[in-house]
Amino acid sequence: MIIFSERINGMYRDVRGAIPERNKTIIQDLLRPQVEGGADVIDVNIGPSKGDPVENFVWLAQTVHEVTPKPISLDSAKPDLLVQVLPKVRQALPQTKLVINSCTAAPAVMAKLVPLAAAHGAGIIGLTMDQEGVPSTVEKRVECGAAFLMGAMEAGIPVEDIYIDPIIFPVNVAPKQPQNVMEALRQLIVANDPPPHFIIGLSNVSQKCLMNRLINRTFLVMCIAAGLDAAIIDSADKELVEAAVTAEVLLEKYLYSDDYVKAWKMQKGL
Amino acid sequence: MIIFSERINGMYRDVRGAIPERNKTIIQDLLRPQVEGGADVIDVNIGPSKGDPVENFVWLAQTVHEVTPKPISLDSAKPDLLVQVLPKVRQALPQTKLVINSCTAAPAVMAKLVPLAAAHGAGIIGLTMDQEGVPSTVEKRVECGAAFLMGAMEAGIPVEDIYIDPIIFPVNVAPKQPQNVMEALRQLIVANDPPPHFIIGLSNVSQKCLMNRLINRTFLVMCIAAGLDAAIIDSADKELVEAAVTAEVLLEKYLYSDDYVKAWKMQKGL
Repeated sequence: MIIFSERINGMYRDVRGAIPERNKTIIQDLLRPQVEGGADVIDVNIGPSKGDPVENFVWLAQTVHEVTPKPISLDSAKPDLLVQVLPKVRQALPQTKLVINSCTAAPAVMAKLVPLAAAHGAGIIGLTMDQEGVPSTVEKRVECGAAFLMGAMEAGIPVEDIYIDPIIFPVNVAPKQPQNVMEALRQLIVANDPPPHFIIGLSNVSQKCLMNRLINRTFLVMCIAAGLDAAIIDSADKELVEAAVTAEVLLEKYLYSDDYVKAWKMQKGL
Repeated sequence: MIIFSERINGMYRDVRGAIPERNKTIIQDLLRPQVEGGADVIDVNIGPSKGDPVENFVWLAQTVHEVTPKPISLDSAKPDLLVQVLPKVRQALPQTKLVINSCTAAPAVMAKLVPLAAAHGAGIIGLTMDQEGVPSTVEKRVECGAAFLMGAMEAGIPVEDIYIDPIIFPVNVAPKQPQNVMEALRQLIVANDPPPHFIIGLSNVSQKCLMNRLINRTFLVMCIAAGLDAAIIDSADKELVEAAVTAEVLLEKYLYSDDYVKAWKMQKGL
């Protein structure tokens, strides 16, 4: 499983406050447990932080890079901002693998972000939505996912750099969506060989839920059973990561050994 | 999810010792936390206990019934023993719903147990194996499951009294079997409408594994995502039961509420 750390995100008050202050300590102290917990990619999102968004983004990426050389995922819902930010982060961190988070299947958005990813050798996450918004049905999710994948591959992005995100909503307000997301995953995986990566922003499923950590790890395991191979998660949540590793051992993605969690950590150099 | 308690089983030393001694206290003290944890059916298995197996079985079922009126599943791999035991337990406990655990798809075994279940209004669990033993492939599991289901339905057993068990092996010795079991579940569910129940003896997956409880609850969640709706488990394992309830909330089998575990317990009168 490719673990994206969710924690360096301006939606969290501590991160949001640290950005305009250029307080590296706060960011880097939050980041270390994420890396030690098994993060493969660090998602960075400036959220509604004060100041120039492009400068904030570049500073945040550089601050992350001082702790770890791991790939960085540039997370924003504003395509025009990503168009400005990506070349600057590329220039500041020429050796770092970058991922665009996120594109959609809307032609106008794809026209901006897909060539950008292709030109910079960046990975790209495509949400299964288009100009009409987030679909509530499985069918439309599959249609959007397929349209995004085709466009990205036609632009020359290698399939291993493409991620499809079927978009999960909180279970407390949209109780049918967990099932729809799993079914969309199953259908998209069967339809594409070799398949791209499939990713979700896990914490969304339990937003404002009382038992959020239990819901997160249960839904992650269910999605792994449906074919998910990447997730944006709190990688410092030990029980969550162990549940994911166990699910992957049961699918033979990792070899079983008595202490397979330890083996998984050693393999990752943790 | 229909929870079968696994704990009153002579494979456990304490139960095995209590049976020939007719020590009700040991059995009933083990049973209460299983019932309080959410067991719907009490599986009883005399294991290799000393003494007359028929008398042992009847005593064990009566001892369980003194604590709870819940259905009792008579668990033995010996069809001839079940043929002797079931009428006697029926006589001793005329109001108690019984389940035969287990039959197979072998014609000689079905000829003994399917009419027995039909005659006594008992439920019946069919393992997806036949006279040739336990299949290693998905295809043969599906074939055995379908053959058992057809035979049981033709004998007049209502579909809600039929359980198919795709047979799980320990992941440490048979690493491909968890995937095969899940795939067999998916195929058997799609092929049968209305479907019977699907059940596994969960603890087998982690036999002699270091992290057995983590493996158990992860595999149970994955199987629920694949369509499992019953399981023989340690229902006193709170984390296991909460994981199962959470998985079922995410599949909308139960309504979400902030404290849905509490709601689930209240609904069960716990």
